Amino acid sequence: MNEAWLQSLVTANAQEGWDLAVKLSRMGVKVTQPSAEARDRLRAIYAEDADSLIAASHVVAINFQTVAAANNYWRK
Amino acid sequence: MNEAWLQSLVTANAQEGWDLAVKLSRMGVKVTQPSAEARDRLRAIYAEDADSLIAASHVVAINFQTVAAANNYWRK
Amino acid sequence: MNEAWLQSLVTANAQEGWDLAVKLSRMGVKVTQPSAEARDRLRAIYAEDADSLIAASHVVAINFQTVAAANNYWRK
Amino acid sequence: MNEAWLQSLVTANAQEGWDLAVKLSRMGVKVTQPSAEARDRLRAIYAEDADSLIAASHVVAINFQTVAAANNYWRK
Amino acid sequence: MNEAWLQSLVTANAQEGWDLAVKLSRMGVKVTQPSAEARDRLRAIYAEDADSLIAASHVVAINFQTVAAANNYWRK
Amino acid sequence: MNEAWLQSLVTANAQEGWDLAVKLSRMGVKVTQPSAEARDRLRAIYAEDADSLIAASHVVAINFQTVAAANNYWRK
Repeated sequence: MNEAWLQSLVTANAQEGWDLAVKLSRMGVKVTQPSAEARDRLRAIYAEDADSLIAASHVVAINFQTVAAANNYWRK
Repeated sequence: MNEAWLQSLVTANAQEGWDLAVKLSRMGVKVTQPSAEARDRLRAIYAEDADSLIAASHVVAINFQTVAAANNYWRK
Repeated sequence: MNEAWLQSLVTANAQEGWDLAVKLSRMGVKVTQPSAEARDRLRAIYAEDADSLIAASHVVAINFQTVAAANNYWRK
Repeated sequence: MNEAWLQSLVTANAQEGWDLAVKLSRMGVKVTQPSAEARDRLRAIYAEDADSLIAASHVVAINFQTVAAANNYWRK
Repeated sequence: MNEAWLQSLVTANAQEGWDLAVKLSRMGVKVTQPSAEARDRLRAIYAEDADSLIAASHVVAINFQTVAAANNYWRK
Repeated sequence: MNEAWLQSLVTANAQEGWDLAVKLSRMGVKVTQPSAEARDRLRAIYAEDADSLIAASHVVAINFQTVAAANNYWRK
């Protein structure tokens, strides 16, 4: 929780914003389960569970809302 | 996660915005489960589960909020 | 997913906006389960499940946020 | 779904806004389960289930966001 | 549902805003389960259930979004 | 619920905003389960449950939306 891994919400384009939303979602898991070994083990299970995958997509969608707003939706 | 599949959140109209929201929701699953074979297998199951379908609709709704805001709701 | 069923998010009044939010929620299910027969079958089940009904109401609420914002909340 | 029960999102004060959010949440259930008898029966069950109650509170919270924004948060 | 317990969303500071968000979350439960005895009984159960606690925190977070926006985030 | 632990939503940078979102999420649990012993015991369980971890990440994402908006997304 104390490492500085988040420099900015501003990204060069929508694609990078999406990738950042995925990163935020994963860091939200890591803050509760810091063990990479445990996370890898659990991912192998939930990657085969439709409801878990939908729930994971949901979290990315919420974080993408934040990143997209931060970037004024990358409008030209 | 590194392919550039998202060019822009701006769409020509509300219908295309909806379709983009569906795509974002699916990419949110794909980022965790990259195997198309696994996703197809799982979809066959959750397409017959009411709660899973409602959860999937929920994710589309969240992503549609983002896309709609990005397009100023396609107001004329 | 390719049919153009969504013309606009702008509605004449709040009531029509609500009805559109319900439609969006159902289309979010239809995009995953295109079979009307399957959806009818599943609805008979989840209409008798309190948690499913609350989840369905949740999705309508999210979509209504989008439609209401698109219409500036139908303020006079 | 075709009855006009929603006249406006504008309310006289925060309390009435909250009451409207509760109404919207219930109408989101009614649109899927139109039978008052069935809804009463189900409510007796989920009113004794902590997770269902939390989920119901969640839906009210989402609808309250919409109503509060529509009223500029009843700021003076 | 008819008692006037909500006077305003404006609070003196962020802390009071948070406390109001907690109150809104609890009132969202109370509107479905008016019995204090039943709510106390259920809380004893869900206070020992991690998923219920996370779900309760989720509702507070949603309500806090509303209260924080109402107060312009208590920016100076 | 009556301790003043939340001074402000304004943070020096995005990283501190994220950390605050994590804190808000945990305080949302603490308000229902005040016992540190109970929370530690429960965390040991849900840290090994993929769905719980995703749900926890979801709450952080919601709170991060609030904190990020409060800080105008730390745009320069």
